[in-house]
Amino acid sequence: MPSALSPSAFTARAPDLAAYRLAAEPYYRPVGDEIAVFEAAWRHRLPVMLKGPTGCGKTRFVEHMAWRLGRPLITVAAHEDMTAADLAGRFLLTPEGTVWQDGPLTQAVRHGALCYLDEIVEARQDTTVVIHPLTDARRLLPLEKRNEQVAAHADFQLVISYNPGYQSAVKDLKESTKQRFIAIAFDYPAPELEAEIVMREAGADAALASILVAIATCSRNLRGQGLDEGASTRMLIHAGRLAAGGVSLAAAVQAAIVLPITDDAEMRRALGAAIAACLP
Amino acid sequence: MPSALSPSAFTARAPDLAAYRLAAEPYYRPVGDEIAVFEAAWRHRLPVMLKGPTGCGKTRFVEHMAWRLGRPLITVAAHEDMTAADLAGRFLLTPEGTVWQDGPLTQAVRHGALCYLDEIVEARQDTTVVIHPLTDARRLLPLEKRNEQVAAHADFQLVISYNPGYQSAVKDLKESTKQRFIAIAFDYPAPELEAEIVMREAGADAALASILVAIATCSRNLRGQGLDEGASTRMLIHAGRLAAGGVSLAAAVQAAIVLPITDDAEMRRALGAAIAACLP
Amino acid sequence: MPSALSPSAFTARAPDLAAYRLAAEPYYRPVGDEIAVFEAAWRHRLPVMLKGPTGCGKTRFVEHMAWRLGRPLITVAAHEDMTAADLAGRFLLTPEGTVWQDGPLTQAVRHGALCYLDEIVEARQDTTVVIHPLTDARRLLPLEKRNEQVAAHADFQLVISYNPGYQSAVKDLKESTKQRFIAIAFDYPAPELEAEIVMREAGADAALASILVAIATCSRNLRGQGLDEGASTRMLIHAGRLAAGGVSLAAAVQAAIVLPITDDAEMRRALGAAIAACLP
Amino acid sequence: MPSALSPSAFTARAPDLAAYRLAAEPYYRPVGDEIAVFEAAWRHRLPVMLKGPTGCGKTRFVEHMAWRLGRPLITVAAHEDMTAADLAGRFLLTPEGTVWQDGPLTQAVRHGALCYLDEIVEARQDTTVVIHPLTDARRLLPLEKRNEQVAAHADFQLVISYNPGYQSAVKDLKESTKQRFIAIAFDYPAPELEAEIVMREAGADAALASILVAIATCSRNLRGQGLDEGASTRMLIHAGRLAAGGVSLAAAVQAAIVLPITDDAEMRRALGAAIAACLP
Amino acid sequence: MPSALSPSAFTARAPDLAAYRLAAEPYYRPVGDEIAVFEAAWRHRLPVMLKGPTGCGKTRFVEHMAWRLGRPLITVAAHEDMTAADLAGRFLLTPEGTVWQDGPLTQAVRHGALCYLDEIVEARQDTTVVIHPLTDARRLLPLEKRNEQVAAHADFQLVISYNPGYQSAVKDLKESTKQRFIAIAFDYPAPELEAEIVMREAGADAALASILVAIATCSRNLRGQGLDEGASTRMLIHAGRLAAGGVSLAAAVQAAIVLPITDDAEMRRALGAAIAACLP
Amino acid sequence: MPSALSPSAFTARAPDLAAYRLAAEPYYRPVGDEIAVFEAAWRHRLPVMLKGPTGCGKTRFVEHMAWRLGRPLITVAAHEDMTAADLAGRFLLTPEGTVWQDGPLTQAVRHGALCYLDEIVEARQDTTVVIHPLTDARRLLPLEKRNEQVAAHADFQLVISYNPGYQSAVKDLKESTKQRFIAIAFDYPAPELEAEIVMREAGADAALASILVAIATCSRNLRGQGLDEGASTRMLIHAGRLAAGGVSLAAAVQAAIVLPITDDAEMRRALGAAIAACLP
Repeated sequence: MPSALSPSAFTARAPDLAAYRLAAEPYYRPVGDEIAVFEAAWRHRLPVMLKGPTGCGKTRFVEHMAWRLGRPLITVAAHEDMTAADLAGRFLLTPEGTVWQDGPLTQAVRHGALCYLDEIVEARQDTTVVIHPLTDARRLLPLEKRNEQVAAHADFQLVISYNPGYQSAVKDLKESTKQRFIAIAFDYPAPELEAEIVMREAGADAALASILVAIATCSRNLRGQGLDEGASTRMLIHAGRLAAGGVSLAAAVQAAIVLPITDDAEMRRALGAAIAACLP
Repeated sequence: MPSALSPSAFTARAPDLAAYRLAAEPYYRPVGDEIAVFEAAWRHRLPVMLKGPTGCGKTRFVEHMAWRLGRPLITVAAHEDMTAADLAGRFLLTPEGTVWQDGPLTQAVRHGALCYLDEIVEARQDTTVVIHPLTDARRLLPLEKRNEQVAAHADFQLVISYNPGYQSAVKDLKESTKQRFIAIAFDYPAPELEAEIVMREAGADAALASILVAIATCSRNLRGQGLDEGASTRMLIHAGRLAAGGVSLAAAVQAAIVLPITDDAEMRRALGAAIAACLP
Repeated sequence: MPSALSPSAFTARAPDLAAYRLAAEPYYRPVGDEIAVFEAAWRHRLPVMLKGPTGCGKTRFVEHMAWRLGRPLITVAAHEDMTAADLAGRFLLTPEGTVWQDGPLTQAVRHGALCYLDEIVEARQDTTVVIHPLTDARRLLPLEKRNEQVAAHADFQLVISYNPGYQSAVKDLKESTKQRFIAIAFDYPAPELEAEIVMREAGADAALASILVAIATCSRNLRGQGLDEGASTRMLIHAGRLAAGGVSLAAAVQAAIVLPITDDAEMRRALGAAIAACLP
Repeated sequence: MPSALSPSAFTARAPDLAAYRLAAEPYYRPVGDEIAVFEAAWRHRLPVMLKGPTGCGKTRFVEHMAWRLGRPLITVAAHEDMTAADLAGRFLLTPEGTVWQDGPLTQAVRHGALCYLDEIVEARQDTTVVIHPLTDARRLLPLEKRNEQVAAHADFQLVISYNPGYQSAVKDLKESTKQRFIAIAFDYPAPELEAEIVMREAGADAALASILVAIATCSRNLRGQGLDEGASTRMLIHAGRLAAGGVSLAAAVQAAIVLPITDDAEMRRALGAAIAACLP
Repeated sequence: MPSALSPSAFTARAPDLAAYRLAAEPYYRPVGDEIAVFEAAWRHRLPVMLKGPTGCGKTRFVEHMAWRLGRPLITVAAHEDMTAADLAGRFLLTPEGTVWQDGPLTQAVRHGALCYLDEIVEARQDTTVVIHPLTDARRLLPLEKRNEQVAAHADFQLVISYNPGYQSAVKDLKESTKQRFIAIAFDYPAPELEAEIVMREAGADAALASILVAIATCSRNLRGQGLDEGASTRMLIHAGRLAAGGVSLAAAVQAAIVLPITDDAEMRRALGAAIAACLP
Repeated sequence: MPSALSPSAFTARAPDLAAYRLAAEPYYRPVGDEIAVFEAAWRHRLPVMLKGPTGCGKTRFVEHMAWRLGRPLITVAAHEDMTAADLAGRFLLTPEGTVWQDGPLTQAVRHGALCYLDEIVEARQDTTVVIHPLTDARRLLPLEKRNEQVAAHADFQLVISYNPGYQSAVKDLKESTKQRFIAIAFDYPAPELEAEIVMREAGADAALASILVAIATCSRNLRGQGLDEGASTRMLIHAGRLAAGGVSLAAAVQAAIVLPITDDAEMRRALGAAIAACLP
C-alpha cells in the first residue's frame, strides 16, 4: 500500500533572499589570518566554528565575510528552547491553508546562503544532530516531515559560534559535532587596534578612546577574580557614545561598563578604583 | 522548488498604540542624573537596564520618561513561563480565520514605542536571545514563523529592569546579554524626598510621613539579618493611606508593613520593637 | 504593514455575575479588627492578603466581606499547574466557532467583583506576575492574546490567601508581590468563641462543644512535635456532627480528628492519650 | 464589552448513570463500625477517606455502601498524570462538532452519584484542589472552561482512598485537603473472618482456607523486614482458586503469593521457609 | 442540564482481529509446569505476569499459549513515554472526520484477545492504573474520553512481562498492581534443552550447539561481576547462524556475543579468555 | 460495537525510494572482516550494530554496504528529542486533508531499504522499543495509530551505530535491545591505511599525509588524559585540504585539529608541543 507525501504537494512562493544580503561593506578590522583561513574553508565549503568571548567581533566578522563572498547571510540566535523544527521548518496553518514553511537553515541550504548559528551550544542537542548530514560529504538536509532530502546548494556554508569562556560540562558540543568544523579563535583586539575601532564606531577622539581601552584592560585582568568577563569592545563604544553625547566620562563609564558588568559591591569598588586610576 | 510564506499573506488591522500613550505626566521625583543618562542613551537608542530593589520607583521612572519623550510605552512583566512567542507574536485561530498577531515587543519595534520588559531575569533564556539582534547595530527583530525580519522603527527603544537583590546564580542574565545595555542604578529615595513622596501619594501630613520614613529606615537596616528586603516606598504609601483613612497608626503599620514583609515570629518581634521606638 | 487583532473581533455574551452573589449573609464571628482593616483597604481598593492556618475561617471571612460590601465574589483555588491563562482567559474552539472566554480574574476585573485567589503560593509564578499591574496605580490587566488592556472596574478588588505554616523556600511569594498587599493575620478563635462556632455549626450542645475545643487545644500543642497542623475548627464541627448524629464521641473524634490528621502510629498514640484525658 | 460563554451554548445528551448502578449486592463482611460511621458521614454528606493496605477490601466496601444507599457509583483510579480536566471534563472535537463532555467527577456531582477517587495521593495536586469547594459548605464544582459553577446534587458524596503504607513525603495530601475528610481505617480481617472470605470467594474448603490465612500471617510479619507489604486477602483468593483448580498447593502459593510479592532471592528463601512450615 | 456523549455517537468499522491470530504453532519447548499454571490462571481469567531475563523465551511462550488456547494475541511493547491513551485509544482526526480509535488494549478487551504488555515496568504509572479495574472482579475498562465502560469479553486475558534483573527502585510496579497477578518465573533452559533449541533455530549441528551453550554458561557466571546479563539463548542462535553461514566460529562468537554484551575492555578480555577455553 | 480505522482509509502516494539509492560506489577501504560479517548477517537479515569512535568511517561503511547489496539506504540521525513517531510516522494535516505519512523507518520496512539509525543511544527509549518486534522472528512494525502491523519487506535490514567512548550510565541501550544485534567494532585505520585515505580524500601528497597521521597518533595518545577523543580521520582530511589549499601547515593543523578538539589552555599547550615535534 503506498503512502507518504510528495514534496510537490505543497504550494509555496519563492523566498526573497535579497533581504539577507548586506547592503554595504560592514566595517571589520582583521587581527590575524582569520580571513585567509575562512576563505580556504569556504573553497571546500568546510563548516566553520568561531570561538571567543562576548562582544569581540564574531558577528561582525561573519557579516564581513558574507559581504566579501557576495552571499546572503541568514543568522539564527540559538537558545535552549530552540528545536530542530525552528531550524528546518514546519507546517503552518495559514489563511491559505496548510503550507510548509522552510526554516532559516533550510532556506540557506536550498538557496545558497551562509547560515550563521550564533551561540550554538545553547540549543538542544536535536538541533546539532540536524546539521550532521550537512557537514560531511553528504551535504544533505533531511526534512522528515516532508519526506524530502534537500541537497545543499553549491554556495551553502555553515558557520557556528561558541563562547568557550562559560560553557559548563552539560552544555558542550558533542565530540561528533566538534570534529566536523574548522575552528577560528577570536579575542579582544590589541590596544591600538581597539582604540581605532572605538574612535570609528563611537565618534570618540583619540584621547577618549585610549582611556576607554585602558579601562577595558583593567577589567579584563579582573576576569576570573570575581568578574565573569571583562568589558567588551562593544561596551567601550557605548561609553564613548555617552561621553561624546555630553554625559561626564565618569558617569558614562559607570553606566556603560561598571553597572552592567557586576552587581557585587566588593567587585564594583575594586573595579571603580582600577578605573579611577585610568581617568584623566 | 520555492517555498515559504510572504509576510503580506496575512490580513491584519493597524494597531492602535494610542492606548499605550500616557494621558498625563506621571509624578516622578528625580534623585540623581538618571534622566540625563536615559536621554543620552535615547539619543543613540542604546538599550537601557534599570537595576534596583522592589517598589523604589523603576516602573514610575519609565512611565515618566515615556511621557517626557512623547512615546507610547508597552510594558511586559516577564515570568518564568514566558516564551519568545509571548514577546514576538503568534498565529491565532480566530473567528476570521488564522491571523498573525504581533506580540507586545513586535508592536513596539514596528511602530516605535518604548518597550519595557519588567523583571527580565524571570524569563526563559529564549526570550533574552530574541532581543539580541534588536540591541546591536542590526536593530532587527526576526519573526521566524513569518519569515520576516522587522527593522526597528526609528523611535523604538528597549528598557529592561532587574532586581539584583535576589538573583540566584541560575537566574542571571548571560554576559552576552548584559553587555548590550546601558545600566542605571536605583535605590530608595533619601529621607526628606521619600517623606515628600509619601505625603503626596498617601495624603499624609508631614508628621505621619516622617514617622513612616523612620520605620522604613529601621526595616531596611534589618535587610540581610532575616529580612529579604526592607519596606519599600510603596508600603509606606499603603500604611499612610490606611492611617489617613481612620485605622490606628499601629494597626496600619502592622497591616501594610510588618505582616506582608515577614512570617517569622522572631523577625516580627524584632521589627515590632524597632517600629515601636519610632511611633509617637 | 498593519497587524494584530482588535478586541471587538470576538463575539461574546454578557456574563451573568449574579451566580457569584451571596444569597444570604454568611455566618462570620469577628475575632479582632479584621473587618475594619479590610474596609479601610477596600476604600482605596488596596489588595488584601489573608494569612493563617487551614480551616480557621479565611474563606468564610471573604464571603462575609463580599456580602457586607454587596459585591459578587469570584473564588479561584490556586494549584501548581494553574497557568496565567487559567486566570486571564483563553480562546476556545466552540460549536459557535472560536470565541474568547474571559477567565475568572478577567471577569472580576471587567465587571467589578471581589476576586479571591485561594492558596496563591501554590500557583506558578506566571500567575503572580499577571496580578502585578492590577495591584499598583495602573489597575490594568493586560490580555496579551487579545492585544487588550482591561482597566479595572471601580469596584474590583483582589484578595489572596496564604498559609505561612507550611511554605517552603521554593514556594513563597516574591518580594515584589508581597509588598503590594495589605495583610491580615488569622488564627484559631479563642476557646469560648470557638465553642460558640461549633455549637452553631454542628448542632452540638455546650458540653460537647467545650470537650471538642479542649481536644483541639491539645492537638495544636503537638504542632511541630510530629503534627504538621493541629485540629482545625472545621474538624471540630465534623466531629460534632458525627457525635450529634449518634456515633459515640470516641469514634467521632477518631474518625473526624485523629485518623485524618496523622498516619504515624506513635503520634496517634500520643494524640489518643491526650484526647482520652479530655473525654468525660 | 461583553464576553464569555453561557453554559447553555453546548448541546449534550442526558447521561445514563444506570451503568453505574450495582446490579446485585456486593459481598462485604464488616469488621467494625465502618458502616455506621459511613452512614453518619453520609447523613451530613461529609466527604470520607478510606485508609489501609492494598487488597484489604476498600473498593469492595465502597461498592457495598453504594448498593446499600441505592446510589450509582463512579470510580476513578488516580494516577500521577491525571489532571483536573480528567475529573472535571473537557471540550472534545467530535464528528458532531465541539461538545463539552462532563468528566466522571462532574457527572457524579451533577446527577447525585457516589464518586470514589481511588489512590488519590497519586494524582497531581491540581486535582485535589478541584475537590476543595466540593468538600466544604459551598458544595460547588467550578467548571472554569465553561464559566459554570455546578451546585452538587443533594445525593452527591465524595469518597477517596489512600494507602498510608507507602506514601513518601512528596506524595502526601496537603493538610488543607486532609482536614476536609472523615477517615475510616481498614486493615486485613481477623483470621477466622479472612478464612470465611477465602472460602466464599475462592471456592476453597475450610482446611485450605485456614492454611492460606496462616501463610498470609507469616508474610505480613515480614513486612518492613524486606517486604513492602504482606500477602493481601486478594492473593489468598488467587492461590485458593489455582489450588481448587488442580494446581498443587505449593505451586499455587508460589505463583499467587511468593513470586508476585518479591524478586529478592534472600527474601524468597525466608518467605519460602515460613510458608513450608504452614503447609500440611 | 444534560451533557456528555453517548458511545454510539461515533461511527467505526469492525476491526479484524484475524491479523492477530497465529498462523502456525510457534515452537516452544516447556521447561517446567508453566503451561499448567497458565491454563489454571486462564480458567479463572486471572491476569498473569511473566518474570525473567532477556531473551529466555517469554514472548515465545505467550505466542505458544495464544495458539494453544486458540485466541488472537495483541502485543504491546511498553516504554517510558507510553501513556494510557496509547493503550486505551483516542480520537483521531482522519480524512473521514473525527473518529474514535480503540487502542490495542481496548481491542483485546472488547473482542476477546490475549493482550501481552511486554516490559510493563517501562511504562508510566498511568498505564498501570488503567489495568486495575480489568484485573479484579469488575473486569471493566473505563474509556473516560468516550464516557464508556467496556465490560471485558469472556475470553479476554491480560499477560504482562517484567525483567526483575534490572529494575531500579524508581521503576517498579506498585504493590497494588503486583498483587493482582499470578506470576510465572522464567530462566535460561537447562544445557541439553538449550542445545536442542539452538540446533533447531540456528540450523547448527550438535557439536556447535554444545560449544555455544558452554560459552553461554561462562558468560552467565560473570553476571554481577561486570556483566549486566549473560548471553541469552537468542544470542546463541545468532552466533550459530553466522557460524553455519561460513563465518569462523571465533568471529561469530565475537560478533554475536562478546561485542554486543560489553564495551568494557577488561570485561571483554575476561570473557574472551573464558570463551577461548570453550572453543574446540 | 465496532470501532477502529482500516489502514486503507487513507490515501497516499507511492514513495520514490530512488532518492535513497547511492549513485556511485562510495569509497571505502576495508580494515578487517567487517564486510564478510555484515554479509553473513544480511543473509539472515540479522540486525547489525556498528561500534566505534567519531569520524572513523562507520557511516561510510554503511553507505558502501548499501551500494554493494544494491539496496536503498535511509539514514536517521537519532537525538534525545526524537520520538517513536519520528521513526514510525504520523498523521499530517496537509492541503489535501489529513493523510498518514510513513516515517523513515516505516518506509524502509515497507519497501525493503537498509535503515541506518545513527547514534541510537541518543534517542529516547520509546524509539528503541519500536524496533524490538522488527528485530526478532516476528519482523513486524506495529503502527498503532493506524491499527496496522507492517510485515517487513524481505530486503529490509536494520543497522544502528553507537559510540561506546562516551556513553554514560543513563544513556545506554537496554540489555533487551543490545542482545538483538550482531556487532561490528570499528577503530581508526592503521597508519599506512589512514595515510592512503587522507591522500585520496584531501588531495594531499604522501609526505603531508604521513605527517598528519603522526599528529593524529599523538592526539589519540592523549585521550583520557584531558582529551575526550583524539583527532579523527575526518579531521586529518580537513587539515590536508586547508594545507593543500595554501594555508600553512601549522595554521591548518591549528584550525582543523587543535582548536576544535579542546578549549583547555593546558591541553592546547601539551597538544601543540606534541604536534610541533611531528612537523617537518
